[in-house]
Amino acid sequence: MPTFDWIAFDADDTLWHTEHLYTQAQERLTQMLERYHPREWVERSLYATETRNMAHFGYGVKAFALSMIETAVELTEGRISGQEIRELIDTARAMLSAEVVLLDGVRETLSHLAARQRLMLITKGDLLDQESKIARSGLGEWFQAVEIVSDKTRASYLRLFQRHACAPERFLMAGNSLRSDILPVLEAGGSAVYIPYAATWAHEIAEAPAPGQTGFYQLDSIVQLPELIERLERGTA
Amino acid sequence: MPTFDWIAFDADDTLWHTEHLYTQAQERLTQMLERYHPREWVERSLYATETRNMAHFGYGVKAFALSMIETAVELTEGRISGQEIRELIDTARAMLSAEVVLLDGVRETLSHLAARQRLMLITKGDLLDQESKIARSGLGEWFQAVEIVSDKTRASYLRLFQRHACAPERFLMAGNSLRSDILPVLEAGGSAVYIPYAATWAHEIAEAPAPGQTGFYQLDSIVQLPELIERLERGTA
Repeated sequence: MPTFDWIAFDADDTLWHTEHLYTQAQERLTQMLERYHPREWVERSLYATETRNMAHFGYGVKAFALSMIETAVELTEGRISGQEIRELIDTARAMLSAEVVLLDGVRETLSHLAARQRLMLITKGDLLDQESKIARSGLGEWFQAVEIVSDKTRASYLRLFQRHACAPERFLMAGNSLRSDILPVLEAGGSAVYIPYAATWAHEIAEAPAPGQTGFYQLDSIVQLPELIERLERGTA
Repeated sequence: MPTFDWIAFDADDTLWHTEHLYTQAQERLTQMLERYHPREWVERSLYATETRNMAHFGYGVKAFALSMIETAVELTEGRISGQEIRELIDTARAMLSAEVVLLDGVRETLSHLAARQRLMLITKGDLLDQESKIARSGLGEWFQAVEIVSDKTRASYLRLFQRHACAPERFLMAGNSLRSDILPVLEAGGSAVYIPYAATWAHEIAEAPAPGQTGFYQLDSIVQLPELIERLERGTA
């Protein structure tokens, strides 16, 4: 009998590359504003605006676009041109229709695991954008459940456990964000596998759990996950 | 035994007032642009932009805000000021934190029905905004299930029937949009109660089902719903 009823995965930067879209958009904004402010200041202001707007706009590309526009207006004291605002909106549209590029080994890993366990996708952001990426990724068939949530907190994981009648200790989550995929799952009593991505948005940075914390594991790549799960099932991890 | 396993409700302009927030925001945009274009042209252009953006941005306040900004840039050929753009973003933030005002009789109706049947809330738009409105409405406790979807189509209702193991003929949906709450439910084999709201966004306008169509009912107010359901159960509707 498998140790876990559900193996859950984050999506952005766990299954497919996303962060580069935000980095490139931010790069465009810093270029646009370079005659007003140094790059570091633009980046810091954008992050401050995003953080301030989070309670209203939440996560995802549309929130990011509104924060980019607001930052552009603020940092130019209103001198940003209509053409440049339009370019920021075009950037958001391009982000929403960008090709979905999977991380190495994702397809094989999911196909291997799906033959033995139930897989769940848990992602936050814009509903339509996430649904569209799942469809375009071609990975949808591997997942028995897809949950798009407004935030990933201890409370939201507990709601998911209840919804899927899953005991916390029989739930394993894999993802690239300590703040969203790892710490709240451990707090909710589940197990979590941290698979760092090359770049992490400042908002998602958090301190790693203490070494040896129950239920916490770290891997370099998703392809190592089936072996870890097998070792956990054999009790040799 | 009740005729329906689930009574489902739309939220915006079925349980609480929403359309006035969009109307007021649009009014602000037409004022802002009145030195460039007549009101009708601004309204028509905004609607065209919203429709064009729908496949990318979906429904909700953030999509609406991006479309307002884009329309303002287009209709002024880029001469819109940074201050005005900021005002449009402020408008969106205000929409997202506006007081949730229930329609007359909603609380009593839900309380009455919830004592006898399972109630579901089905709404589309921004995930965070809809969750926040449900929380602020104080109505959350009446609903056994809350579903926030990216669109309301025959396919999305069929997915909900499956998710909740509900036979279509044992599902009744009440809402103010023929396009989203009524026609797709009837197509999926459910029953639907149309409760028109004073104002309807152009996108949601659709032709009413033919009189006498199986499963279709129309009421003036939500307070008439319990009586209709009782008549359906007695087979006298």
